[in-house]
Amino acid sequence: MNPAASIDGNTYLNDTSSLVDRILERHLPADQTPPTTLHQAMRYSVMAGGKRLRPGLALAVFEYAGGDGKKAPDTIHKAMAALEMVHTYSLIHDDLPCMDDDDLRRGRPTCHKQFNEAVAVLAGDALHVLAFDLMAQTGSNRAVLELAEAVSTGGMLGGQIADVEAEGREVSYEEIKSIHTRKTGALIRGAVRIGAILADANEELLARLTVYGERIGLAFQVIDDILDIEGDEKLLGKEVGSDSKNQKATYPAVIGLEKSHDEARRLINEGLAVFADEEDHVLKFLARYIGQRAY
Amino acid sequence: MNPAASIDGNTYLNDTSSLVDRILERHLPADQTPPTTLHQAMRYSVMAGGKRLRPGLALAVFEYAGGDGKKAPDTIHKAMAALEMVHTYSLIHDDLPCMDDDDLRRGRPTCHKQFNEAVAVLAGDALHVLAFDLMAQTGSNRAVLELAEAVSTGGMLGGQIADVEAEGREVSYEEIKSIHTRKTGALIRGAVRIGAILADANEELLARLTVYGERIGLAFQVIDDILDIEGDEKLLGKEVGSDSKNQKATYPAVIGLEKSHDEARRLINEGLAVFADEEDHVLKFLARYIGQRAY
Repeated sequence: MNPAASIDGNTYLNDTSSLVDRILERHLPADQTPPTTLHQAMRYSVMAGGKRLRPGLALAVFEYAGGDGKKAPDTIHKAMAALEMVHTYSLIHDDLPCMDDDDLRRGRPTCHKQFNEAVAVLAGDALHVLAFDLMAQTGSNRAVLELAEAVSTGGMLGGQIADVEAEGREVSYEEIKSIHTRKTGALIRGAVRIGAILADANEELLARLTVYGERIGLAFQVIDDILDIEGDEKLLGKEVGSDSKNQKATYPAVIGLEKSHDEARRLINEGLAVFADEEDHVLKFLARYIGQRAY
Repeated sequence: MNPAASIDGNTYLNDTSSLVDRILERHLPADQTPPTTLHQAMRYSVMAGGKRLRPGLALAVFEYAGGDGKKAPDTIHKAMAALEMVHTYSLIHDDLPCMDDDDLRRGRPTCHKQFNEAVAVLAGDALHVLAFDLMAQTGSNRAVLELAEAVSTGGMLGGQIADVEAEGREVSYEEIKSIHTRKTGALIRGAVRIGAILADANEELLARLTVYGERIGLAFQVIDDILDIEGDEKLLGKEVGSDSKNQKATYPAVIGLEKSHDEARRLINEGLAVFADEEDHVLKFLARYIGQRAY
């Protein structure tokens, strides 16, 4: 977790992902504990890997903002688990036949394919409530409210429904920006803010970090759109071309591929500008990683 | 809200339901606020009426335990809204085609019938997170943890999956008791405990009220099973006979109709026994109402 030891954002995420996995392992119900089907499905989807970007970001922000993980590791660890669980819940529901109808996620059958739809709906619900349980266990009411805001109809859920409703029709630049800001940006912004809040960051620092979270959060989804065209299926662990097949509203569909690259670059630079005169550190590495990721 | 003015539990719930409706009205997003479809679906399902038992119980317990609703009405009111919203979310997801596949709820088309499945999944999710948002706004971390426990895989969600998995096969008395205790009992127990916690009840009183909540919570579902056989479709606002059609595990299916009546009576009496030597009051009225309800 020593920032100096992290050559780049990818290395940092790889380094923290095993910590994140251990934390998740600890806070997920055992799959032998009834209701076993539900607990198996929760574990199946949460432990399928993934970048662990949201918990990684929350930890990096927590440490950047002076939070002492050694004094109360449980606090930030529980928040990290909550963020990954709420993210996974959103993926499970998003993959359902009535939503994006995806068969593959992180290289494996999606939850409803591996189990069934009823189990997938309930496993998503179960991760949703467990996330709030864990966040409340940090003892920070503000962190709970922050998580709620991030995944509310003003945030992630509003983005998800707008995304579904935009399928097959022409959308404007302002619309796609609003969809992506909410669908993906809101939880990444929330992860950053929760890390800062748990570190007792002052309001000025919180406001600056919020700008960072917003820019890289939106950039992340713009690049997701780009990778659905230019990406490598094997690296991504999911089909490419599905956005265009499903007539999804994407940045490349609205402003073209080249301008989407420009937009992602601009957003990453705006995120980096928050730390203008500072020496390199993990939050800068992570922003650059998001700008350059191939999966 | 004067207990003496309440002749019986039904009257009390009728009296409080308009208060509950006003509270819900205040805390639901306006349906003209985007995402409009989602907000419309949330309002459609939450404002469809219903007994408002959980918020009514929470308020009655809060007042019984000495909570001062005039000093901080917002606290108990937000908790009441949260309880009804989390209940409605569970109904919306429970009605989905992949779950109970119900077309009618409270005399109106179910959420996925009125809108569509994607909207129903997300509207349920949105009520789920809004409930935690409101509960966190009470400022009581303990109330948030209590709500999480009630609707977790150890509670309501565990009961829902067990209920789905028990369809079409023989279940034991112990099993059906465990399913109902979790599926319906856990949230009613939670409503009682949250009312007590927000009133700063001492642990002895909380423990006694918990017994009350557990008994009437389980009785409520036993009577629900009975009404699916003996009830009046018009009063219930839903089809009767659906449990047997769907080969659901129910008390009458496991122990017969007569013994189910006995069981409900016994549970109500055990709930009433918590207040053995006390004069009549709202919590006793509510227990008796649950024991005698016709819808």
